[in-house]
Amino acid sequence: MENTIGKEFVRLTKYANLEPSPQSLGVPLPPLEMPLPEGAEILPLPAGKDMALPKLDLAELVEKRESLRKYAPTALTIQELAFLLWGTQGIKSISDKPITKRTVPSAGSRHPLDTFLMINRVEGLQPGLYRYMAVEHKLAHLPAPADFNPRMTEACLKQAHVGNSAVTFMWVADVQRTIWRYCQRGYRYLYLDAAHVCQNLYLLGEAIGCGVCAIGAYEDDLVNGLLGLDGENQFAIYLATLGKRG
Amino acid sequence: MENTIGKEFVRLTKYANLEPSPQSLGVPLPPLEMPLPEGAEILPLPAGKDMALPKLDLAELVEKRESLRKYAPTALTIQELAFLLWGTQGIKSISDKPITKRTVPSAGSRHPLDTFLMINRVEGLQPGLYRYMAVEHKLAHLPAPADFNPRMTEACLKQAHVGNSAVTFMWVADVQRTIWRYCQRGYRYLYLDAAHVCQNLYLLGEAIGCGVCAIGAYEDDLVNGLLGLDGENQFAIYLATLGKRG
Repeated sequence: MENTIGKEFVRLTKYANLEPSPQSLGVPLPPLEMPLPEGAEILPLPAGKDMALPKLDLAELVEKRESLRKYAPTALTIQELAFLLWGTQGIKSISDKPITKRTVPSAGSRHPLDTFLMINRVEGLQPGLYRYMAVEHKLAHLPAPADFNPRMTEACLKQAHVGNSAVTFMWVADVQRTIWRYCQRGYRYLYLDAAHVCQNLYLLGEAIGCGVCAIGAYEDDLVNGLLGLDGENQFAIYLATLGKRG
Repeated sequence: MENTIGKEFVRLTKYANLEPSPQSLGVPLPPLEMPLPEGAEILPLPAGKDMALPKLDLAELVEKRESLRKYAPTALTIQELAFLLWGTQGIKSISDKPITKRTVPSAGSRHPLDTFLMINRVEGLQPGLYRYMAVEHKLAHLPAPADFNPRMTEACLKQAHVGNSAVTFMWVADVQRTIWRYCQRGYRYLYLDAAHVCQNLYLLGEAIGCGVCAIGAYEDDLVNGLLGLDGENQFAIYLATLGKRG
């Protein structure tokens, strides 16, 4: 049978095909972040906005942006990493519901993404698997196998820039946070939200002398397995490699 | 039967479930743009990069960005519109395949989007329905009913900022351009590509004193009908309103 899932997805996420939302049925608001696994070590981050960045020509920045797959061996500073995390998922305010306003938009301010990081070259940080704790603006160092980098590169269809990146960003969709309000139509918004984030990474990366390459080509099950996700309620939705320009 | 299309979509767009791509079967590369309807009038645009924009603080721009639904009655200049179109879909180079490099990334440089515009307030342009011709960097004025604005506002679930916007951007996915290479997995990329574009609109809009509001909540069939799309091969995938800040 021919695979026509895309057409079906567009059709079955129309309003006429949606069921009552969990929100309308009184289901409580899901938490803002996924829980941390046992053994995570919490590390502080400098304020993202403390990045001293000269004023720039936005049109030139937009024009210069390109997908870059080769990086210099230079490490990022922790300030640069904090700047990129703030500019892609940073929280500007939290209401008491709680609902967050962030540096990127999200459908209904649902903000369904958590940012996992494969860190290879950031000054002062051991290479490994991390998560950005947006609410706390902190970093969590997660347990991971010693060969995490080659396994993640393999899971990304052997794209060498994954292994060679200074940092690979892996955005994970926590599905309930969005479908709680939007039902199945919310899956559209998961993808849309993820690319708003990635576009900010492109521009902010460019502004600090980094190149970025978005990745949609990866073996879902392998990436989800490496991140400890079930692949249904939480799954890797978009990835991007980043490193200093040569 | 419960609607679980999102979960099915994620599953059936995994590599193991994809069929041979049209590209691998020798199907020719689809055209870069959708054909124009009869009766379209072609209008010139100034170069997008000619926008004289003072240098700015990117972190401040990212922090200030918010979704804005109320706009001043001020019109945009044609230079401002050209800047926004260039910065969201503008072509930097075309190879002889032909493949375009644009001011935004797109999976495999497939660039499957065409930009439709409901123009309400741009100096020198009659209100109505337009399309950005990215290859030519021109504007096409399309035939549309006199009550296009109220009907589009209605189709967007009566969101008043559609009717009150200076310009409403309507990004249309021309599905073949992406699934030609990526099969059904390409539907993920259509949504991702659209939001890269929309995030640039947010930032470039902010830089010229405009507010933007992304729209995922609309009646697909009504919007597609108003744009003359079949809703399957071509469909409206994301919208955004824009207008001057008050």
